[in-house]
Amino acid sequence: MSRLFEKTYLAPGAAPGHGVHAHHHAGKGARVCAWHYDQECLTELDGDRILYEGAGDTGRGFMWLHLQGTPGPEQLYALGSAFGLHPLVLEDIRHQGQRPKVDFFDNTLMAILSHPRHEQGRIEIDQFNLFVAPGLIISIHSGEQDPFEPVRDRMRGANRNFNRLGAAYLAYALMDAVVDQSFPVLEEISEWLERLEAAVLERPDATTLAEIHGLRRELLVLRRQLWPARDVIARLMRDDLEPFTAELFPYLRDVHDHAIQTVDLLESYREMAATLIEAYMSAINQRSNDVMRVLTIIATIFIPLTFVVGIYGMNFDHPDSPWSMPELYTYYGYPVVWLVMLGVVAGMLYFFRRRGWL
Amino acid sequence: MSRLFEKTYLAPGAAPGHGVHAHHHAGKGARVCAWHYDQECLTELDGDRILYEGAGDTGRGFMWLHLQGTPGPEQLYALGSAFGLHPLVLEDIRHQGQRPKVDFFDNTLMAILSHPRHEQGRIEIDQFNLFVAPGLIISIHSGEQDPFEPVRDRMRGANRNFNRLGAAYLAYALMDAVVDQSFPVLEEISEWLERLEAAVLERPDATTLAEIHGLRRELLVLRRQLWPARDVIARLMRDDLEPFTAELFPYLRDVHDHAIQTVDLLESYREMAATLIEAYMSAINQRSNDVMRVLTIIATIFIPLTFVVGIYGMNFDHPDSPWSMPELYTYYGYPVVWLVMLGVVAGMLYFFRRRGWL
Amino acid sequence: MSRLFEKTYLAPGAAPGHGVHAHHHAGKGARVCAWHYDQECLTELDGDRILYEGAGDTGRGFMWLHLQGTPGPEQLYALGSAFGLHPLVLEDIRHQGQRPKVDFFDNTLMAILSHPRHEQGRIEIDQFNLFVAPGLIISIHSGEQDPFEPVRDRMRGANRNFNRLGAAYLAYALMDAVVDQSFPVLEEISEWLERLEAAVLERPDATTLAEIHGLRRELLVLRRQLWPARDVIARLMRDDLEPFTAELFPYLRDVHDHAIQTVDLLESYREMAATLIEAYMSAINQRSNDVMRVLTIIATIFIPLTFVVGIYGMNFDHPDSPWSMPELYTYYGYPVVWLVMLGVVAGMLYFFRRRGWL
Amino acid sequence: MSRLFEKTYLAPGAAPGHGVHAHHHAGKGARVCAWHYDQECLTELDGDRILYEGAGDTGRGFMWLHLQGTPGPEQLYALGSAFGLHPLVLEDIRHQGQRPKVDFFDNTLMAILSHPRHEQGRIEIDQFNLFVAPGLIISIHSGEQDPFEPVRDRMRGANRNFNRLGAAYLAYALMDAVVDQSFPVLEEISEWLERLEAAVLERPDATTLAEIHGLRRELLVLRRQLWPARDVIARLMRDDLEPFTAELFPYLRDVHDHAIQTVDLLESYREMAATLIEAYMSAINQRSNDVMRVLTIIATIFIPLTFVVGIYGMNFDHPDSPWSMPELYTYYGYPVVWLVMLGVVAGMLYFFRRRGWL
Amino acid sequence: MSRLFEKTYLAPGAAPGHGVHAHHHAGKGARVCAWHYDQECLTELDGDRILYEGAGDTGRGFMWLHLQGTPGPEQLYALGSAFGLHPLVLEDIRHQGQRPKVDFFDNTLMAILSHPRHEQGRIEIDQFNLFVAPGLIISIHSGEQDPFEPVRDRMRGANRNFNRLGAAYLAYALMDAVVDQSFPVLEEISEWLERLEAAVLERPDATTLAEIHGLRRELLVLRRQLWPARDVIARLMRDDLEPFTAELFPYLRDVHDHAIQTVDLLESYREMAATLIEAYMSAINQRSNDVMRVLTIIATIFIPLTFVVGIYGMNFDHPDSPWSMPELYTYYGYPVVWLVMLGVVAGMLYFFRRRGWL
Repeated sequence: MSRLFEKTYLAPGAAPGHGVHAHHHAGKGARVCAWHYDQECLTELDGDRILYEGAGDTGRGFMWLHLQGTPGPEQLYALGSAFGLHPLVLEDIRHQGQRPKVDFFDNTLMAILSHPRHEQGRIEIDQFNLFVAPGLIISIHSGEQDPFEPVRDRMRGANRNFNRLGAAYLAYALMDAVVDQSFPVLEEISEWLERLEAAVLERPDATTLAEIHGLRRELLVLRRQLWPARDVIARLMRDDLEPFTAELFPYLRDVHDHAIQTVDLLESYREMAATLIEAYMSAINQRSNDVMRVLTIIATIFIPLTFVVGIYGMNFDHPDSPWSMPELYTYYGYPVVWLVMLGVVAGMLYFFRRRGWL
Repeated sequence: MSRLFEKTYLAPGAAPGHGVHAHHHAGKGARVCAWHYDQECLTELDGDRILYEGAGDTGRGFMWLHLQGTPGPEQLYALGSAFGLHPLVLEDIRHQGQRPKVDFFDNTLMAILSHPRHEQGRIEIDQFNLFVAPGLIISIHSGEQDPFEPVRDRMRGANRNFNRLGAAYLAYALMDAVVDQSFPVLEEISEWLERLEAAVLERPDATTLAEIHGLRRELLVLRRQLWPARDVIARLMRDDLEPFTAELFPYLRDVHDHAIQTVDLLESYREMAATLIEAYMSAINQRSNDVMRVLTIIATIFIPLTFVVGIYGMNFDHPDSPWSMPELYTYYGYPVVWLVMLGVVAGMLYFFRRRGWL
Repeated sequence: MSRLFEKTYLAPGAAPGHGVHAHHHAGKGARVCAWHYDQECLTELDGDRILYEGAGDTGRGFMWLHLQGTPGPEQLYALGSAFGLHPLVLEDIRHQGQRPKVDFFDNTLMAILSHPRHEQGRIEIDQFNLFVAPGLIISIHSGEQDPFEPVRDRMRGANRNFNRLGAAYLAYALMDAVVDQSFPVLEEISEWLERLEAAVLERPDATTLAEIHGLRRELLVLRRQLWPARDVIARLMRDDLEPFTAELFPYLRDVHDHAIQTVDLLESYREMAATLIEAYMSAINQRSNDVMRVLTIIATIFIPLTFVVGIYGMNFDHPDSPWSMPELYTYYGYPVVWLVMLGVVAGMLYFFRRRGWL
Repeated sequence: MSRLFEKTYLAPGAAPGHGVHAHHHAGKGARVCAWHYDQECLTELDGDRILYEGAGDTGRGFMWLHLQGTPGPEQLYALGSAFGLHPLVLEDIRHQGQRPKVDFFDNTLMAILSHPRHEQGRIEIDQFNLFVAPGLIISIHSGEQDPFEPVRDRMRGANRNFNRLGAAYLAYALMDAVVDQSFPVLEEISEWLERLEAAVLERPDATTLAEIHGLRRELLVLRRQLWPARDVIARLMRDDLEPFTAELFPYLRDVHDHAIQTVDLLESYREMAATLIEAYMSAINQRSNDVMRVLTIIATIFIPLTFVVGIYGMNFDHPDSPWSMPELYTYYGYPVVWLVMLGVVAGMLYFFRRRGWL
Repeated sequence: MSRLFEKTYLAPGAAPGHGVHAHHHAGKGARVCAWHYDQECLTELDGDRILYEGAGDTGRGFMWLHLQGTPGPEQLYALGSAFGLHPLVLEDIRHQGQRPKVDFFDNTLMAILSHPRHEQGRIEIDQFNLFVAPGLIISIHSGEQDPFEPVRDRMRGANRNFNRLGAAYLAYALMDAVVDQSFPVLEEISEWLERLEAAVLERPDATTLAEIHGLRRELLVLRRQLWPARDVIARLMRDDLEPFTAELFPYLRDVHDHAIQTVDLLESYREMAATLIEAYMSAINQRSNDVMRVLTIIATIFIPLTFVVGIYGMNFDHPDSPWSMPELYTYYGYPVVWLVMLGVVAGMLYFFRRRGWL
């Protein structure tokens, strides 16, 4: 697939949810884990069983089902059946490259966010799907690495927030982890930018150009994810949605704040990258100008001199004519020619210096 | 007609609907098909009869009248009479290049969308007109190929959605097929962009420039269609219109989501194309600079040398003068000149290297 | 007056309406016509009489007073007296270069629109003032040609709309004619753009630059008119104004649609023109680069050769020295020099080809 | 002070209104005039007395206090005491470079507008402060020249509007005079632009560049004033403020219209100036290209020729060798060399013409 | 840390408020001061005691706790305990590079603003946190220097405003001081811009380019702070928040006005800097063109002359041939060659002058 087109999509006209149950789907599916949390106590459950049988009664605590990797068709089917997810939702999980969004189906909130990684000059986007239902959190992260271990560590510690605020606080913690992931990526990009800046101002060459161009492309890829992510968080706050109570609002505002900051930084970097191209072109032009000046000075000094010595290389030779290059036969002819040539050089140098070219 | 002006329009001052009944209209008109759907059963009807006689009573199911191609004046007149369409609507069907829009006339919803195709570096736009009335769907697609066969296949299969949600679900399915058509087009454009990117960074020439320029023009053409298409879908959702009930909203949101994604991708591509021109200019400048440097090095090395050898080509020849090119008659004169010239070359090379030109 | 400043204005501090009655006003004033329409019947009246005496009772039908050309002061005064127009309105009629707008004074709606013409690479703007009062339409068009003859033809034909919808339908028809006038202008601009595009990519020269620059200026002039025109129509629809009843709304939406399309096209053209300048600069740079390459190749091939032949043009001549250009006196000296020179040429060509300059 | 920073400001942390009463303030203060208007009759009063003692009872008419020039500290103190102005308002009067704004303090409306002048390629901004209280208008204009004499002339004449609409009409008349002042400034800028346009397309040089740059700077300065001025007028209309009754609305709309037009024109000029820089760069590149072409043609024609004549200037001279430049001793050697050289020239010219360089 | 990424952030997934109590935190913490104000009387208190024990009962007056510098973990913990601040708030204080914002926790208003400094071509941002609770102001300024001494001077003087309006007026005074701090920074930037402008138009070189680029980067850094600062003040006004009563509104409007002006100026400077790069490139191109012209003139004059003298340096020498360079042996050959060469020079000069290159 093309680098600039990261979406998988159905053939136009196909049914929504089509391809979800397809058996020709290759790949190993997602790793499934599940936990139950109650009273500051996190218990690991059999993920696969939960996936196929549903959450059951979660008591006072809440259940967290986590799928690491893109689920296979069977897993998707199980998800759909056991948790009553709409076929369109399954389609969104299945097809990478979704735009961050938030949606509601009955009493289930679904949010899609993107989890960027910076790998050797490329921004890779992992998709993060989050479902929040009463007493139940389902999270699906399409990457290889599970980024939520720090969150589980906090759940294992004596963290009253999880106890007091329940599943909604876990939803916040997961979204916070995903949004904050942009900061290390943006920090690496800022270092990349500074490296390129130094390269442009000191020794611009063709690889610099290709790098700036690549950086701008990656910033565009990242931008397609960060802007809608900001709107997703804003909408969660604005709509006063079910699981997010007033007590959780300071936390959501904090995530929103971070989402805005990522967008602010991104836009600054985009602008820096654009000015970098201009600076690159200016630097190239400046160098070109310097080279031209040296060429001009050397050429314009020597071209007239070469003409002068050419004159006296002519073989005019009429034995009787007094017009036949008499200079050649004068006593001081040769040193006079040298003096003339030195005069020409001096005049040129004076002219160049006055023009500011030296 | 000009490539950049794809609209057919009436002479200013002409009556609305004028030209619709014109008999001087050439062309073969549209192919007309019709189906009746009820209880998971799709029955093909005589399209031409329906076109001229109207839908009649459609019972519990619904009727779908489809015209493939731009209708001729007689067909338009029949449409207007049999289904009571407003003359302005007929004018919109007749004149290609309409802006996507949604409108209401009595109990009929009319939507115009555009169905892009990518053909050899050109975006071709087919116009899609959709009419939704109770128990009746009329669709008019101006292209050669009928893109809705996959939809009919789904209707023929045991698809409960068509049964349960009726004509509105068909309307959704048709709009979904038309909007999703942008994805393959955008994917081809993304590949085109990547090809151009490689060309710019590796071997930019005049055809690259013409291609980038052409790509930007096609993106502008596509943009004029995709932005209003997004708004059409948004308005269908916002206005809570007659045939689209709450049960259909997740589907409309899905189409809206896809429409936003096409716009997002398009804008990314437009920006990439703009940066591509800048990169192209930078690359051309860079090459120009390289060429200049080689010229300068060779010229500045040889121009002084040529002057030196020119000196000793002069014919000063005064038999008695000790100033008359005495160097010519010294024992080591010739090798000394060579040494001087080698010294000049060495100095030049040192100067160039210090300047970073080698 | 300057091309970019097309407004006539009063001295700052002057009274509104000042200059309207001024007697130092030269020019022949406007041609005045008037018609009465009732029951599909259009009767021509004595325009001048109506202008000076007012409309009187128009019965069931309506009256249409049309002024072709900029009215003189006496005509303006008559308009003001006979139809009770506000001095500020008269000032707007008098001063060309008004921004399209819509305004209300008592029961009179006033709309100003602009009627563009394309004349030999220049956009000329005629001002169109429309007044709609119960049973009365006043239209003032500042151009030479009356563009509304097709509208009158429709009124003379058996057009039920004029009969049924009355003066408001005529107002619509006039605005429609004025807005649609942008389409032929935009079509000519699109052809102009395509001509320039071909010129840029094939044979860019200084006149191309001047033409692109001129086109951009004309697009700016046109833009100042089309954007507010769109808002005028939108406001007529939004405000649900007196003479425009629900039955007229589909017609107004149609005009609005056309106004949006003109803006869409205009913005596309503006962007094309901007990319054209970039393409022009790229093309110039590309050509410059090509020229440079040829110069470099020829110069770098011949400059060293000229140096070589210069060497053997030196006159070192010491009778006894074995160092005094012994090559000159060897048996194969001359052909060896030729071989050396051919070797230099071959090396150069190889170098250039490897660099991709040939 | 810097050209781009035209604001005078207090040290951060200083009290608002601080510096207003400062006695170290140099400068001669403002000229103070006052008039009383009643029943179409304008009576001049003793301005200084009014300034220090306040307006008193103005009867049925209204009082107009006008200060021409920046008021000194004593005058400001008097204004504050006699008319009860807030210290922040006095600070705004005192510090030039305020942004146009409208504000309310109790029953007093305060508007700040800017009155631009164009003086030899610079936009100078005079500040205009207007206070409207019942029966009282205070106007402060920071310039040297009083621009409101035409307004007073209208008051002296039999102008029913002043009589009927009172102080609010005077407020309108003053704002109208200040807003309309932008038209002559914009007209001069449009002429400046056209002069630069001609210079760019015909004979671009370094002073053209400096002038375009200066024009863009002045447009930025003007822009900082015109945009907020538009909003000031819009807010007066929107808020339905005390002294501006329905009868005055057509007049306010007219001022608003003019304010929009100034912004429209300004934005067009800014865009023209931006395209002018691009056109300038294109023109410079074009000329550079032309120069290069001539150089290339002449150099590439003569460099090979010079090589040819160099060959036969070599002194190879082996008495017995048949390889020792035998051409020199052939009967037709010299004319053959000429023919060869003419052939080279013809070939070159053909090559150049085919490339389109001639 | 990178220059373009000025934020300190927690590892993604870490708990909010994490790191606040960390004991591995180095650094000396903030200097703590406290004052009590009542009845125009400012009493200094023991800041450290207040920090650890809380404000207690402040009577009719109010308490001001000020921390100068970034607080250490112990101080933060004390703040959180004694004044009941939310862990997220403590995190915001701890992590520099926050975006200006306003937030509410129970009855405490928290505002973050930024206090820019210009130091040798770099914009340094100090963070300013302000807490407003009934009878209590807490301010934290991350810089070295306490910028609020002028505010305390006003409190010590007989300033009725502090007495009458209480803590809210102090909050206003502090925000006013912080916002106004942008003016001297912007003034220095405007001077920097003018210096660069002169450099670009008079003697552009590579350091100019690096400086413009640096200026643009600093403007981007400043922009990230000023835009949200404006919104913070606007929100304080719009939301009609607790401590800010109607009497304080003119003061808030004044701060808002200043915040808008800083944004206006900043945007003007950003645009000027962007046009400066264009002007720089134009100037470099212009100079390059000038250099090229001189080179072309000198080279094209001398290259043909060198060819001519090269001709008569050839050694064709057939004793009997009348074609063997007969010119060499004519009586006036040499002066005729000179005349020919002078003719060539004259022709060239005429050609160049006609082209406008001289």
